[in-house]
Amino acid sequence: MRNDLKQLHKEVKEGNFPALARGITIVENELNGYESLLLKLNENRRARVIGITGPPGAGKSTVVNALLRHWLKENKKIAVLAVDPSSPFNYGALLGDRIRMSEFYSNPNIFIRSLATRGALGGLNARIIEITDLVKEAPFDLVLVETVGVGQSEVEIAGLADCTVVTLVPEAGDEVQTLKAGIMEIANIFVVNKADHADAEGLYRNLRMLVHEKAHSGSKTGEEEIPVLKTVATDGTGIPELAASVTHYLDKQKDLPAKRLHLLADKCWQLIQAARMKDIDKHKLLADLEVALRTDDFNLYAFTKQFLDKTVTG
Amino acid sequence: MRNDLKQLHKEVKEGNFPALARGITIVENELNGYESLLLKLNENRRARVIGITGPPGAGKSTVVNALLRHWLKENKKIAVLAVDPSSPFNYGALLGDRIRMSEFYSNPNIFIRSLATRGALGGLNARIIEITDLVKEAPFDLVLVETVGVGQSEVEIAGLADCTVVTLVPEAGDEVQTLKAGIMEIANIFVVNKADHADAEGLYRNLRMLVHEKAHSGSKTGEEEIPVLKTVATDGTGIPELAASVTHYLDKQKDLPAKRLHLLADKCWQLIQAARMKDIDKHKLLADLEVALRTDDFNLYAFTKQFLDKTVTG
Repeated sequence: MRNDLKQLHKEVKEGNFPALARGITIVENELNGYESLLLKLNENRRARVIGITGPPGAGKSTVVNALLRHWLKENKKIAVLAVDPSSPFNYGALLGDRIRMSEFYSNPNIFIRSLATRGALGGLNARIIEITDLVKEAPFDLVLVETVGVGQSEVEIAGLADCTVVTLVPEAGDEVQTLKAGIMEIANIFVVNKADHADAEGLYRNLRMLVHEKAHSGSKTGEEEIPVLKTVATDGTGIPELAASVTHYLDKQKDLPAKRLHLLADKCWQLIQAARMKDIDKHKLLADLEVALRTDDFNLYAFTKQFLDKTVTG
Repeated sequence: MRNDLKQLHKEVKEGNFPALARGITIVENELNGYESLLLKLNENRRARVIGITGPPGAGKSTVVNALLRHWLKENKKIAVLAVDPSSPFNYGALLGDRIRMSEFYSNPNIFIRSLATRGALGGLNARIIEITDLVKEAPFDLVLVETVGVGQSEVEIAGLADCTVVTLVPEAGDEVQTLKAGIMEIANIFVVNKADHADAEGLYRNLRMLVHEKAHSGSKTGEEEIPVLKTVATDGTGIPELAASVTHYLDKQKDLPAKRLHLLADKCWQLIQAARMKDIDKHKLLADLEVALRTDDFNLYAFTKQFLDKTVTG
């Protein structure tokens, strides 16, 4: 097993797609040896991570596909991790793979993997950090992480990605002022997709106003304005400009994204919790609790204390 | 301190409101001695818990006030825990207290406490179980827990309460078919409040149809239909019938609510986690991580392992 994993890790580093796919499956499902595989990774690999987020229906997948076509022409090697909230099971994600991959299926420079959200808070896969770390071992130029922006996931994607692209569509229209402050906080680049729609100009102007206000408000006076770009991803309009904007952002980036430490600290806390809770048998806890609950003098806090004492000594 | 708490617990059991208020503050904020106070409680106290939930604007507070007036006439002693999501800070909850208490302020049979949600998942106070357990120590006939139904909190309230009343209003109107299945699962009694509104009859009929279908579908054929009651809480219409329905439900209840075990198991798991994580210094973790993150060969999983090893031996 150990030798197998060493071989697998070597193949991932060489850019072997089937090995990478198997590695992701191992990490995602915590299969035998996943921990020793994770211990081999280096968080600070060169490949940069680009987050593409936005509300459902904003055309994120279409933007991603258009970017892939653009970067392929520049001979870039790219991995796409698409977090698909449509199904609580893996079936949806697998189906997602096939649909997304139809165009890039046999392209040796594009690796695509759809991931189910698995009920993780806010819509990111619970193992997205580990999976991204593994993907970064392979010799990709860029790793795109596509995710539906829903609450918590926005903060997560901003911590995970070196550059976060927030994609919006005119339907969101004049109500952009009601956009959660969260989106303003995480966007490094705004994209108004479907810019050929009637209301696109209004959304564009509103966003421009918001990023202008943000750049010139409070303590951050003089900060560079967040770029707002228009695209029609279906026909490629504005995609070269978006790609250039992403590259520009990554080139001038001097430090880790502000939310990276926060994200990794949360993850670290979860890992410690998991390690500390490993010996707690959920089924035994439930069974013992069910019995105790029916006694007249039941006290939840005394029960918990006793359960813990038993676990420690037993 | 120990003697103080013993005295406090004694006073709570005697129905001393200031003592109960202080006890809640101790438990809610984990002040000195809160654990030993919790260890004195008995989960299975006689006072029954009634959950009042429903969407914002359904008139839950008005229904609660009308029920209080009704039960006061029957000389019942009642505690109200109102979970108020309007403010992340306690100010909102304190303000809530004053507004709610205006009518019952000096009534020796009514204890009211507003609780902030404190960012707990889904809108219940993170210490609602502990606080309810404490309140049940006092000689109340009924404990009302009022909460806005938002996602997770619906399941929590159904586990916490012996009888869950779901309050809806005609504005929800014909769209009752889009009600989350969750609400159907947790309701023991439905209330159509503001029943004098034009669309009330439609909502009422839809609910009747749904509860009929539920009672006669699948494996549960022959189950009693969930009562659907109409109220106009502002003038008291339908309130005696609602009170009777609650009493009837509680009287015929033979067992703990189905979700009680689930709720307490979750809580128990959280308590175990808290106990197991007590020695993990969040600030040190963050500081160490910040340094490690800037090293070239940073690996999150190795860092976590080392941090844990150091904590154990140190």
